[in-house]
Amino acid sequence: MNDDISDQPVDRPRLALLGLGAMGGALARAWLAAGRSLTVWNRTPGRAEPFAAAGARVAGTPAEAVAAGDLVVACLLDDASVGEALSGADLAGKDLVNLTTGTPAQARARAEWAVRRGARFLDGGIMAVPPMVGVPESGGYAFYSGSRALFDAHHDTLTVPFGAVYTGEDPGFAALHDVALLSAMTGMFAGVAHAFALIRKESLAPSGLAPLLVGWLTAMAPHAYQIAAHLESGDYTEGVASNLAMMVEGNATLRRTAEEQGVGAELLAPFMALMERRLADGHGDEGTTGVVDLLTR
Amino acid sequence: MNDDISDQPVDRPRLALLGLGAMGGALARAWLAAGRSLTVWNRTPGRAEPFAAAGARVAGTPAEAVAAGDLVVACLLDDASVGEALSGADLAGKDLVNLTTGTPAQARARAEWAVRRGARFLDGGIMAVPPMVGVPESGGYAFYSGSRALFDAHHDTLTVPFGAVYTGEDPGFAALHDVALLSAMTGMFAGVAHAFALIRKESLAPSGLAPLLVGWLTAMAPHAYQIAAHLESGDYTEGVASNLAMMVEGNATLRRTAEEQGVGAELLAPFMALMERRLADGHGDEGTTGVVDLLTR
Ligand SMILES: NC(=O)c1ccc[n+]([C@@H]2O[C@H](COP(=O)([O-])OP(=O)(O)OC[C@H]3O[C@@H](n4cnc5c(N)ncnc54)[C@H](OP(=O)(O)O)[C@@H]3O)[C@@H](O)[C@H]2O)c1
Ligand SMILES: NC(=O)c1ccc[n+]([C@@H]2O[C@H](COP(=O)([O-])OP(=O)(O)OC[C@H]3O[C@@H](n4cnc5c(N)ncnc54)[C@H](OP(=O)(O)O)[C@@H]3O)[C@@H](O)[C@H]2O)c1
Repeated sequence: MNDDISDQPVDRPRLALLGLGAMGGALARAWLAAGRSLTVWNRTPGRAEPFAAAGARVAGTPAEAVAAGDLVVACLLDDASVGEALSGADLAGKDLVNLTTGTPAQARARAEWAVRRGARFLDGGIMAVPPMVGVPESGGYAFYSGSRALFDAHHDTLTVPFGAVYTGEDPGFAALHDVALLSAMTGMFAGVAHAFALIRKESLAPSGLAPLLVGWLTAMAPHAYQIAAHLESGDYTEGVASNLAMMVEGNATLRRTAEEQGVGAELLAPFMALMERRLADGHGDEGTTGVVDLLTR
Repeated sequence: MNDDISDQPVDRPRLALLGLGAMGGALARAWLAAGRSLTVWNRTPGRAEPFAAAGARVAGTPAEAVAAGDLVVACLLDDASVGEALSGADLAGKDLVNLTTGTPAQARARAEWAVRRGARFLDGGIMAVPPMVGVPESGGYAFYSGSRALFDAHHDTLTVPFGAVYTGEDPGFAALHDVALLSAMTGMFAGVAHAFALIRKESLAPSGLAPLLVGWLTAMAPHAYQIAAHLESGDYTEGVASNLAMMVEGNATLRRTAEEQGVGAELLAPFMALMERRLADGHGDEGTTGVVDLLTR
């Protein structure tokens, strides 16, 4: 137990953590391992016991936890549970960091809500899984957005569990970055699933394909730099080595191969359809950047 | 001109190349730069002129080109054009390498066709764009499958334009690897397009998002190793840090964010639907590997 926080250096705030699920628990362990003063609360009280044994103070209510902390971190299921848990707490003068996953609009609304109650607010989006928490070499980090002053004041504490990337004063930006990266990953995982499905009935070992896939995807990921440059210059043909006309011809081979291999092409079809629409609109000399425009209503 | 090939070392075959399009032309330049004996043919004769000036012999017909070569390389539009171009040529005793993109079934049929005509056959799938040809540090390579003897005999010549990865005696395997990698890339590009669409109406620079996307996709690509291990062991839960139940909860945030940002979710929807189907089938503790099974009919 560490009830006496009087000898903590000034830059080491009293921490209060709401939520001891898979991620919240990992955060608690990382801060305790770093010798931080920590008060925890969890809706199901039994989950707090191991943390008490490891030196955390346990609060009986969220309001009690908030009262015991300068820096309050919420890592709960979703935005609604954050509103619910904090509804009876006095946030005046507190620094609130919300590490609960949500949408940009939810983060913006939650920021207004917190500031109205007298708190400084920072939203976070975690780009890590629990085993990466407290393991710097894992490369895990979180996006943050909202109060720059809060971010700067608590940088030292925030970077105990994982790296910290500040994305702007707009409290929605952390969630926007988080969701953008997860969306891109979802597309990549879809492509990878399709690739493995193609060899499912062949005498080819998936473990032989894997390193080739990883090497290829790693080599092709920097294509994102070209798309960014296109979107900023407005010239979608700049530096294109493999143009839309050629890629659409390739689509036919992709579709036909899927059919030969007995694989549904549903994961690739929507992107191929948008490429083909852009080509039909007369943009055969572009890369794939025009698809971004077609997606944005 | 280099009509005299008598002083070429034994391991340097007389090369005949059919097709001088963007890729065929790059191949021709690479072989000529390496001092190889080269006869070229192109359907539209004018395209051969610069290569004649650079030292290539120009054949008037495909049959003439084939007669002048020991190693015949075809790099034409599609499989049908290969059949058409070579229909009148005598392939007996020749080594034919088909670097024309096609499906596994097309490659298998083309191999039978070539062997029936007395040739050894190797199919290739090029993982490079023309500017990468002859530039070893670009990392470009081709998959090959079919005659191992042909591959070994001509390895030195085949590796002039780009690296060479042999994938097996089954002539369909090069195309299968080629299409598998291109399919995975298509998924990744779809995800990247969606990510950029999400920030389209925000005061966020695409060039700021790009390095974050590239870093994240590069970090997440090795997920393919886990999928391969799952497919080989049959246990789709092994080492899963982020399980399907959690990912499906995340899908809701992805969908909602797309809606908030005015972005169509059509590129992610089919994969999310398959994840949800697998979850509904009672596999919440797995990763995404089960989707591979759902894709394979
Ligand atoms: N785990 C990851 O890999 C990961 C990665 C990135 C981001 N995140 C984000 O981190 C957050 C927490 O995730 P997790 O993995 O820790 O989830 P989890 O293991 O499911 O834990 C959920 C936590 O939220 C609490 N909770 C749920 N509903 C509540 C309510 N209405 N009121 C108060 N508390 C409530 C739960 O309390 P009980 O114990 O009482 O149920 C538990 O403490 C989520 O937003 C998640 O998206 C997680
Ligand atoms: N370019 C790339 O980035 C790339 C990358 C990987 C793989 N590849 C593959 O390489 C192959 C060639 O691509 P490319 O970029 O060179 O294409 P390209 O620039 O469009 O050239 C096509 C070539 O095929 C010839 N051709 C078309 N139809 C023909 C027919 N019926 N009979 C005889 N010749 C015919 C054309 O002759 P004419 O000059 O008379 O039209 C030309 O030489 C394709 O299979 C492509 O998928 C290309």
